Amino acid sequence: MPLTAVEVETNPPYRVLVGAGALDALRADPAGGVAVLADAAVWALHPIPALSDTPRLELPGGEGAKTLARLGEVLEWQASARLSRASTLGTRGGGASADRGGLAASLFKRGHAVVHAPTTLLAQVDASVGGKTAINLAAGKNLAGTFHQPAAVYCDTTTLATLPDGERSSGLGEVVKTALVGGPADLVALEERAPALAAGDPDATAEVVAACVAVKARVVAKDPTERGPRRALNLGHTFAHAIEHAAGYGAVPHGVAVAAGIGLALRASAELGLLEDEALVERVQALHAQLGLPADLVELRETSGLALPLDELLAGFAHDKKGAVGSPEFVLVRAPGDLPLGAALDPRLVESLLTP
Amino acid sequence: MPLTAVEVETNPPYRVLVGAGALDALRADPAGGVAVLADAAVWALHPIPALSDTPRLELPGGEGAKTLARLGEVLEWQASARLSRASTLGTRGGGASADRGGLAASLFKRGHAVVHAPTTLLAQVDASVGGKTAINLAAGKNLAGTFHQPAAVYCDTTTLATLPDGERSSGLGEVVKTALVGGPADLVALEERAPALAAGDPDATAEVVAACVAVKARVVAKDPTERGPRRALNLGHTFAHAIEHAAGYGAVPHGVAVAAGIGLALRASAELGLLEDEALVERVQALHAQLGLPADLVELRETSGLALPLDELLAGFAHDKKGAVGSPEFVLVRAPGDLPLGAALDPRLVESLLTP
Repeated sequence: MPLTAVEVETNPPYRVLVGAGALDALRADPAGGVAVLADAAVWALHPIPALSDTPRLELPGGEGAKTLARLGEVLEWQASARLSRASTLGTRGGGASADRGGLAASLFKRGHAVVHAPTTLLAQVDASVGGKTAINLAAGKNLAGTFHQPAAVYCDTTTLATLPDGERSSGLGEVVKTALVGGPADLVALEERAPALAAGDPDATAEVVAACVAVKARVVAKDPTERGPRRALNLGHTFAHAIEHAAGYGAVPHGVAVAAGIGLALRASAELGLLEDEALVERVQALHAQLGLPADLVELRETSGLALPLDELLAGFAHDKKGAVGSPEFVLVRAPGDLPLGAALDPRLVESLLTP
Repeated sequence: MPLTAVEVETNPPYRVLVGAGALDALRADPAGGVAVLADAAVWALHPIPALSDTPRLELPGGEGAKTLARLGEVLEWQASARLSRASTLGTRGGGASADRGGLAASLFKRGHAVVHAPTTLLAQVDASVGGKTAINLAAGKNLAGTFHQPAAVYCDTTTLATLPDGERSSGLGEVVKTALVGGPADLVALEERAPALAAGDPDATAEVVAACVAVKARVVAKDPTERGPRRALNLGHTFAHAIEHAAGYGAVPHGVAVAAGIGLALRASAELGLLEDEALVERVQALHAQLGLPADLVELRETSGLALPLDELLAGFAHDKKGAVGSPEFVLVRAPGDLPLGAALDPRLVESLLTP
């Protein structure tokens, strides 16, 4: 598949390159210099030769390393690497690396450029595009962060061949979500590519990444700071955060929790009579089954062996970032591309959805 | 003096209220709720009765408490106080409280509103207006932060009566700087008020605070993120940061270092033939003398008893936030209100200015 370029029309705009040769376009010498913040395990597998001689900090990846203390390490390293407001930070790794690196870039000297070279499916289709940055607090996931759009994103899809299964599933959950946010044509396109995607076909995977980035670019450009339509990208996420909280962070891959959350959002939408065509529930279940994702919370409990009891799920709503504390907001579904935002569900409905 | 309201025409705009009754306008019940982050020592002297029943975190004030660890305390408290994106954080204290609280407000859940109720002259004339937030790193002062404009600022000038002398001097240094940034009329107005200001007259002090806020509002509205004309507000600051670094942070009050820095910037401007009227040097020296500020580095060395050796001053330029690392940028002076920006001075000139 040839390289695909997607423009994100924020102010200023930036380009996301997707495909096997995406890294070839990465310049080692932007004005102001570049330094690399890498997931150590990822850099060992997928170094960037063009950036091998620039200052580099290698840290652990994953949610566990998205802490304030690690952020402090990065900030002090930015000082010791003599970065200025004209510098560029390059991140190499998964979503956690982009989240933490993006935050460090937005804070050091009150902000310099960041470019992402994501290596996981989740980071390529979701985390590295759109400018959300974050670290976790003891009180909850992604509770401290900024909006800081990258200057460019390089999605080299050849790195996806080495992804562990759990990481791949995590990305696939966001792929289904993105197609539902995109609209009817995006969902059909994903259904057509699903068999090849499930089989790990590199071209189909690259096409799917490019399609997801195109949807995300469209949504983000309309609403860079998530005050309105961008909230559609949180489809399944209020439930997913509750599931991840109840499971203990890391026990259920994020995108797997999102898949179950989408199942719950569809069921809530059906029960409220919102859903225009109930066949959508089966279509999404079929996609999830093809891609090895749980159809809903029932199936997630079975396959994970986790109890995910009601009270712990409800406690997980406490720090939903979108609504007022104690009043979580849900994204519902009328049809693909038509997602009512900001619904506060009847607590009895939520309980009935979550009760084992 | 009646209450003065200054509009800062950023997007969105906000109001700064200056005078003895400024706090009366503070609402205890904005939509989304309010919580107070206070300098513990300040709150004991100057509590805000209208906010006595809201959640409150009291922390030490001052530069020493602008650390990443303290920021983490604030962020976890924001979670435990159940703040949402619709909440407002109120800060009470000096510049350090506003800097740290503004950063916490800009980060929690990717940003909620902040209002400042500053209690020092420095914070009222400078730090609490304009949206710069920061904490210090081990590598240098204010190296991590954001731009996050407050929703409102309440400058109750009655709090200034309890200010220790050093704190007052620190504010006066920024007062002179602000008049020089403002223009010829602002400088004349300050010269006229200087005797009453030096004597601690409350009305003259409130008038000077309001005049400084008006200048700052004008400059900030033109350039909220300091890419161009706002950099004029850094007059004297590149030298001041070097002085504070060489003295050890806290040994010389910030505004006192700024006063010496202004003296150095004027001398550099004169030596380069930039200064339109060399009488400005004497006018500023006279103002500094009236207000108990050092005319220049020579006088600062004498009055402080600090050696401030050349090599330590030069090392203090390393993390100037404005220029490239190792190439500090200076604001120079052609005339009041006419300050050439971004000058990189000949290292021999800098050395001659700083050599004891």
